[in-house]
Amino acid sequence: MQNFIFKSPTEFIFGKEAENQTGSYLKKYGAKKVLVLYGGKSAKASGLLDRVTKSISEAGIEYTEMGGVQPNPVLSKVREGIELCRKEQIDFLLAVGGGSVIDTMKAIGIGIDYEGDVWDYFCGKASNPHPYPGAVVLTIPAAGSEGSKSMVITNENGLLKRGFDCEESRSKFSILNPEITYTLPAYQTACGAVDMMSHIMERYFTNTPSVELTDRMSEAVLKTIIHAAPAAIANPSDYNARADLMWASTLAHCDLLSCGKTGDWASHDLEHELSALYGIAHGAGLAVVTPAWMKYVFKHDIPRFCQFASRVFDVEMNYFNPEETALTGIYKLEEFFKKLAMPTRLADLGITDNQFQLMAAKTTGQGTHTIGNFAKLSENDCCQIYELMK
Amino acid sequence: MQNFIFKSPTEFIFGKEAENQTGSYLKKYGAKKVLVLYGGKSAKASGLLDRVTKSISEAGIEYTEMGGVQPNPVLSKVREGIELCRKEQIDFLLAVGGGSVIDTMKAIGIGIDYEGDVWDYFCGKASNPHPYPGAVVLTIPAAGSEGSKSMVITNENGLLKRGFDCEESRSKFSILNPEITYTLPAYQTACGAVDMMSHIMERYFTNTPSVELTDRMSEAVLKTIIHAAPAAIANPSDYNARADLMWASTLAHCDLLSCGKTGDWASHDLEHELSALYGIAHGAGLAVVTPAWMKYVFKHDIPRFCQFASRVFDVEMNYFNPEETALTGIYKLEEFFKKLAMPTRLADLGITDNQFQLMAAKTTGQGTHTIGNFAKLSENDCCQIYELMK
Repeated sequence: MQNFIFKSPTEFIFGKEAENQTGSYLKKYGAKKVLVLYGGKSAKASGLLDRVTKSISEAGIEYTEMGGVQPNPVLSKVREGIELCRKEQIDFLLAVGGGSVIDTMKAIGIGIDYEGDVWDYFCGKASNPHPYPGAVVLTIPAAGSEGSKSMVITNENGLLKRGFDCEESRSKFSILNPEITYTLPAYQTACGAVDMMSHIMERYFTNTPSVELTDRMSEAVLKTIIHAAPAAIANPSDYNARADLMWASTLAHCDLLSCGKTGDWASHDLEHELSALYGIAHGAGLAVVTPAWMKYVFKHDIPRFCQFASRVFDVEMNYFNPEETALTGIYKLEEFFKKLAMPTRLADLGITDNQFQLMAAKTTGQGTHTIGNFAKLSENDCCQIYELMK
Repeated sequence: MQNFIFKSPTEFIFGKEAENQTGSYLKKYGAKKVLVLYGGKSAKASGLLDRVTKSISEAGIEYTEMGGVQPNPVLSKVREGIELCRKEQIDFLLAVGGGSVIDTMKAIGIGIDYEGDVWDYFCGKASNPHPYPGAVVLTIPAAGSEGSKSMVITNENGLLKRGFDCEESRSKFSILNPEITYTLPAYQTACGAVDMMSHIMERYFTNTPSVELTDRMSEAVLKTIIHAAPAAIANPSDYNARADLMWASTLAHCDLLSCGKTGDWASHDLEHELSALYGIAHGAGLAVVTPAWMKYVFKHDIPRFCQFASRVFDVEMNYFNPEETALTGIYKLEEFFKKLAMPTRLADLGITDNQFQLMAAKTTGQGTHTIGNFAKLSENDCCQIYELMK
């Protein structure tokens, strides 16, 4: 086990009708004038936004709304938000939405007090921001951004999708009401499940030896998702399945499951190129990328893939042919994604052209660096993994 | 799953030589004058206290020492600490020790600014304290007090052992270096393992339906302890076993494993009477109490005990006789405690007299209330459970 620091200070308010407490929690955390950020029409149409803003008004707190955040959120929207916050003298940010809205909020938060362009943080030109405080009312369990330090933004200029991590950007409080997710379509529910599973698997596949406790907890959350996701799709109003998925999304990405180990993250890098280029949903992209990545790298540590197969997918260990056990685990994962009606090949995503070389070059900085930690992947490796997605 | 609020804001600094960062973290959290609280001679003899105070001095922070905290920590020591803090104008508390030292620190923390007697909080006469900030350098993984909101203090007047919970009493930061625990004797290592397992089992046995995610994570931590505790006893310098135990102790009691459910806690209540009356180690007492409690209540929810047996102790399910599976799980737990050389009967603790009626009366307030939530236990039930410990 490696040395680590773990701090997840976010207050999670979980359960039925929790969004009606938004105002009182904003008050508790000292908000005076709030930017309420949201995405498309569903937040309005469902009545959620009304309930949230009513709760804010009842707490005697002022607010300004800004909607229109798109999936795979873009830099221009972040800049727009920064300008609005400066103009309106906002002192607290509230994201009502999923990962895209939350990440946009976090990016706005690090940009308000920064004199340069906020993209500087994403391309390594700036560091140590002083983020504005923010909070979340979660609508889509997937990205885990409600409890994480991460944000991912796409710069439309060059279609660059880049992440930035900042401990101080963690949400002050996050309101998680599983009922809100009853109306999520099956496709989005499935994309969310894949995304959170990926957050766990990226951490699970590590070269760090002896991480038993974190391994077992990761397997626990994976098994729960594997049970809950089909249940939520079969019965969208299954409260307990929705609740398991929502809490799993948070636990998957709050770094609890990173403790003591180095994660991989190559699958995320490979997928970011796909969604930047083709605008596909991140979860759907990960369902294609992850099994391909596994097939390419599993021989690097067959025992770890056997443990994954056995403990997560109940594959019986073949002691005489561990490679077969490892591969069976990967195929079980692929089968599970198919069961969720997720794509597992690029063609399922409608991607039939061959931009593998371009994407491999982009993700490795034109071959100047490798990606991943479990196995270090060169530009050529990335190209071959994209080939496996055909 | 029930509605819940989860907030665990403590910063955990985990790993080799972590105690040398004590000073810089105290500085980060604004300490100016620190009370360094510790227990017996081992903290001094091992050189740990020197390393910690050196680190504090190097950070330019003043400190005062107070040693002599005993296991099953007592109210008089808490009062002594409160007086000292007021006299020395302490603004930050640091516990270098295990649960007894940390709980004493927390109790001092809620007492300094309170005009009345600090015991008022433990007997329900006072609430909503304003605790002083505190931090921990952990020496014994067991009580989980390094990440919990709880404290337990014994009032020598009447041998009353009582707990108090306060969210604001959670440690600001906790330094966890598994190497420090290499010198822990086998007995203390075993007591610690039982204590943390009990913290998980108290939460696990619940009447709340559909708590899959929390159940599975609880099983993950239990399985890890079951593997790590004998390994650490067999080889006291096994870093990874020590590390698993240390992190497990924190996770067992930081409330992560309570999310969405109501825990039981009758075993802790029953044990507190034992250790108050006989001064035995809490973990050793729990090794006697827990299987007895299980044997008395398991029929209340046989499926849950089957799940425990099957998932935690790999007992094969007897579909035609679930009661047998449930009982096998309980016996496996008892066998595991024996493997750790823990007592499983009162006689093993040297307790041969019969004070069952007295203890049952004390824990139920002379029969005025029940204890436990999984099964509500009357004074008579408690008496019968003590009988099962013979």
